[in-house]
Amino acid sequence: MRWFLPREDDFFDIFERAANNADVAAAALLELVVKFDDLPERAKRIKDLEHAGDKITHEAIDRLNRTFITPVDREDIHELVCRIDDIVDLIDTATNRMVLYKIGEPTHAVIDLVRCLKHSTAVIRETMPLLRNMKNARAIAERCIAIQTQENEADRVMQHAIAALFESRPDPIEVIKWKDIYEEIESATDRCEDVANVLDSIILKNA
Amino acid sequence: MRWFLPREDDFFDIFERAANNADVAAAALLELVVKFDDLPERAKRIKDLEHAGDKITHEAIDRLNRTFITPVDREDIHELVCRIDDIVDLIDTATNRMVLYKIGEPTHAVIDLVRCLKHSTAVIRETMPLLRNMKNARAIAERCIAIQTQENEADRVMQHAIAALFESRPDPIEVIKWKDIYEEIESATDRCEDVANVLDSIILKNA
Amino acid sequence: MRWFLPREDDFFDIFERAANNADVAAAALLELVVKFDDLPERAKRIKDLEHAGDKITHEAIDRLNRTFITPVDREDIHELVCRIDDIVDLIDTATNRMVLYKIGEPTHAVIDLVRCLKHSTAVIRETMPLLRNMKNARAIAERCIAIQTQENEADRVMQHAIAALFESRPDPIEVIKWKDIYEEIESATDRCEDVANVLDSIILKNA
Repeated sequence: MRWFLPREDDFFDIFERAANNADVAAAALLELVVKFDDLPERAKRIKDLEHAGDKITHEAIDRLNRTFITPVDREDIHELVCRIDDIVDLIDTATNRMVLYKIGEPTHAVIDLVRCLKHSTAVIRETMPLLRNMKNARAIAERCIAIQTQENEADRVMQHAIAALFESRPDPIEVIKWKDIYEEIESATDRCEDVANVLDSIILKNA
Repeated sequence: MRWFLPREDDFFDIFERAANNADVAAAALLELVVKFDDLPERAKRIKDLEHAGDKITHEAIDRLNRTFITPVDREDIHELVCRIDDIVDLIDTATNRMVLYKIGEPTHAVIDLVRCLKHSTAVIRETMPLLRNMKNARAIAERCIAIQTQENEADRVMQHAIAALFESRPDPIEVIKWKDIYEEIESATDRCEDVANVLDSIILKNA
Repeated sequence: MRWFLPREDDFFDIFERAANNADVAAAALLELVVKFDDLPERAKRIKDLEHAGDKITHEAIDRLNRTFITPVDREDIHELVCRIDDIVDLIDTATNRMVLYKIGEPTHAVIDLVRCLKHSTAVIRETMPLLRNMKNARAIAERCIAIQTQENEADRVMQHAIAALFESRPDPIEVIKWKDIYEEIESATDRCEDVANVLDSIILKNA
């Protein structure tokens, strides 16, 4: 093991690749719930993105191990890549559930929920390059608020979606299945908010 | 952006206002489940408290941004206000669920659970002023234990409440609805315990 | 209150006792789901282990309060003992649910899930003594990966187990009960992964 000279750009590159990967995974999930065809093929593609995310996360942690001076706090780097990794994991889990639970067709609510998630991952993706320069602190903070707003919206959509299930579905098993899938997707928007919180905390310490 | 001279009192004021707001929200939820009338009006009142909580949280974070020296670790301040904010959010979510799920009447268990929560928020409220002086470390630690005890009690009440649902409710949809509401309220007591854990950690570092 | 001279060994002793206790609790849960006899007696034994875990956790926090220089970061010590405590709490909760929900007989899936958990606690137990010497960083890192792999496996087992419930159980209440128990055990493996993450983070800072 040898120490590298600090190369700040490497970490920012990793953040951007992780965020791009999460946004691509959210796009793949959105396409899945909108088109709802070729599910095994689409699930495989999302699983591949989940593995790609794992590789990026391990690369980040490995680099942390070998870097003495980091551009932002080590703990924040760790948290940032882990929470982005969680987003992709939850997208993969929600996908697996739709396949394993043998869902016949998507609900309007699941499409609305995934749209909220896709919106959040897009904002995260466009925020990452701003992190290279702390003069962008205000612009980053505004995007963090946008992510938090989207999380509130996802929560509202999910609550109404679950209430709608209770009113319309005669089969309790169907209610349980969809509730489970909705909650998984809503958790992914929670992890987006966690990312926003780490970004907020990085600004707190560095701006 | 300009730096303010450190004014320790400001943060302690914010902590106290946040804790008061959470305790008022818990009181409003308790009154709601006990009386179970005028639900839309009561839900609106709780939503207003949730918005008031958001404002307090943003004020805290804004002040963190503009303060160079803080009376306790920046990260602990951030964590403390965020977890108190979570308590109010969960109270609001539980309320929304009772309205959205068109609950006809409260169970004994939901009243017991909210009583546990109200007990915890009252202890948090009375602990906050003690934080101004680290000579109160022991008194703070004792209150943290009281909050943890209450969280265990809430967990026990919830488990028995869910078991009772299984035995008494012929309709699985009713079981799903109440289980969901119970879990939301129990999560609020978990967040109270998180607040206790931050307080413990502040004592660890400062006493 | 007086300050003790730093005695690094004391903390490592506590970590080892906490990890041993969690592994013994997982073993007790595994025996419970395999044999599924004398449930009240077995539940009492697990509750005793949960109380023993609480005592170890409080001892750790008390010692933190009275120690000026710690062998690893105070926050990591706090996190490590709290997450190990969570594992035992969740084992106790899962046990209580099986008793309270009046489960008649175990499923194959619950046995598989507890085996994953037991595997993770065994790895945590064998990793703790390595923490005394940072020359073991690589060996610790490898064990962390093993714990993460096991968590993925537990997640996969749980998802298939829930899908199997949907296909085989005509009674939605049975589905709700088992889903709840599976999720509690799977959460325990998540907490094992959290322990692995703290260990990773200790290595990051100290190796």
